[in-house]
Amino acid sequence: MTQQKRTIKLVISYDGTDFCGWQKQLSDRTVQGDLEECLSTITTEEIRLHSAGRTDAGVHALGMVAHFVCASRIPCEIILRAVNSMLPGSIRLLDVAEVEASFHARYLAKGKKYRYSIFTRKIQPPFDRLTSLHVRKALDLERIESCLKLLVGTHDFSSFENSGSRDKSITTGRGAVRTIHKANLVQPDKNHIELEFTGDGFLKNMVRNLVGTILEVGWGKLDEKEFMDILLAKDRTKAKETAPAHGLTLIEVYYD
Amino acid sequence: MTQQKRTIKLVISYDGTDFCGWQKQLSDRTVQGDLEECLSTITTEEIRLHSAGRTDAGVHALGMVAHFVCASRIPCEIILRAVNSMLPGSIRLLDVAEVEASFHARYLAKGKKYRYSIFTRKIQPPFDRLTSLHVRKALDLERIESCLKLLVGTHDFSSFENSGSRDKSITTGRGAVRTIHKANLVQPDKNHIELEFTGDGFLKNMVRNLVGTILEVGWGKLDEKEFMDILLAKDRTKAKETAPAHGLTLIEVYYD
Repeated sequence: MTQQKRTIKLVISYDGTDFCGWQKQLSDRTVQGDLEECLSTITTEEIRLHSAGRTDAGVHALGMVAHFVCASRIPCEIILRAVNSMLPGSIRLLDVAEVEASFHARYLAKGKKYRYSIFTRKIQPPFDRLTSLHVRKALDLERIESCLKLLVGTHDFSSFENSGSRDKSITTGRGAVRTIHKANLVQPDKNHIELEFTGDGFLKNMVRNLVGTILEVGWGKLDEKEFMDILLAKDRTKAKETAPAHGLTLIEVYYD
Repeated sequence: MTQQKRTIKLVISYDGTDFCGWQKQLSDRTVQGDLEECLSTITTEEIRLHSAGRTDAGVHALGMVAHFVCASRIPCEIILRAVNSMLPGSIRLLDVAEVEASFHARYLAKGKKYRYSIFTRKIQPPFDRLTSLHVRKALDLERIESCLKLLVGTHDFSSFENSGSRDKSITTGRGAVRTIHKANLVQPDKNHIELEFTGDGFLKNMVRNLVGTILEVGWGKLDEKEFMDILLAKDRTKAKETAPAHGLTLIEVYYD
């Protein structure tokens, strides 16, 4: 009798500061690399993780989702505890659950939520520096909100896509067309603003490219019409600088 | 005519994670060392900082106070900006002000406030790990509050003093006698408790030693009477383990 394989779903939080992104690389330290090593040790199998997507070097996650298939019978609660005790403090499994064999973290992802955090006061305290971009120059929040409203809906985001392979999750055949369901400006306290984007998928560096150009609008260097023209141009050379990685956090991945 | 020297007071915040404490050392990286180097470069004088006290390796500060004397006429606002632009993000000057020549950050300090932060849920998220101690085992908060009440007042804290030179600020001749004005348990959210101590001075490792023993009371390994007996014993060997450095933050230094 062959033992049935199990499919295990993970929810993962990480401080991306010390990692060269999610995706495993031969030489550099990555979240996937660290996790696969721990999981392989615990299951005594060679574990290959499939994630909902990738994050770039320095980008954080509150709720990245990934899955793997294994023969091991180790209970999920034990995997959670054992992996967390082996991992560095900068990565934490928040949840481990057995799911149906048909589950796939990437192919079944229906959408994602990202947050870009900006510290807006004169002096940024040290404890904030790794998760918020420091912007000293005054920002016009109304104009930023106007840009965010313009983004909601289905657009070709070629102007905000960096070259590189695309996330094929649910968007195969759609080119650079993505749907943004929500784009909000949140003020969690008097020192920060957060730009939150929920959508069915995001192109490489799309959020950071959007934020970089939205900041130019906030500073009055562009107006809302020019912002819309950049989006409609479908030309990456029209958009502004990519915002730094450390302000960005993948908040959640959505499934049916 | 000889130019009059100026006395400059600094308020400093730092993430102690990457430093071997406040006090300058020959080989290791310290907050004082980094700051003196920047200030010396900017003023083109050899700057010697006098702080309200020291913090150990890994301990953080929200509002450490220090002063220095210089001949330079550079305005305080320029010192603030220039030093912050040179410093690593883990140290930030929050305020720079010219004060009377009689000011002394250590000798005139009337008291200090420390906070010890504890994360009490099962899985500690990565973003919290450098500033809060993770305690999985359930804590009896009422018993912890009883201990804190017992501490308020003037006591000989020999049982909670580690060997090492004493902070001479306002306590010379008083041995290990210190007065704690306030000792409170705060719950900033459902995941954390914070133990806050305000007093006229603190012995070496005193807060971390108090917290280490208070945790034993919280776990039910000691009761409040045994805690009081340890305090009254004036004997370091009676107290429990020193709590880890990374949960501790110097919040404020008080002056008249």
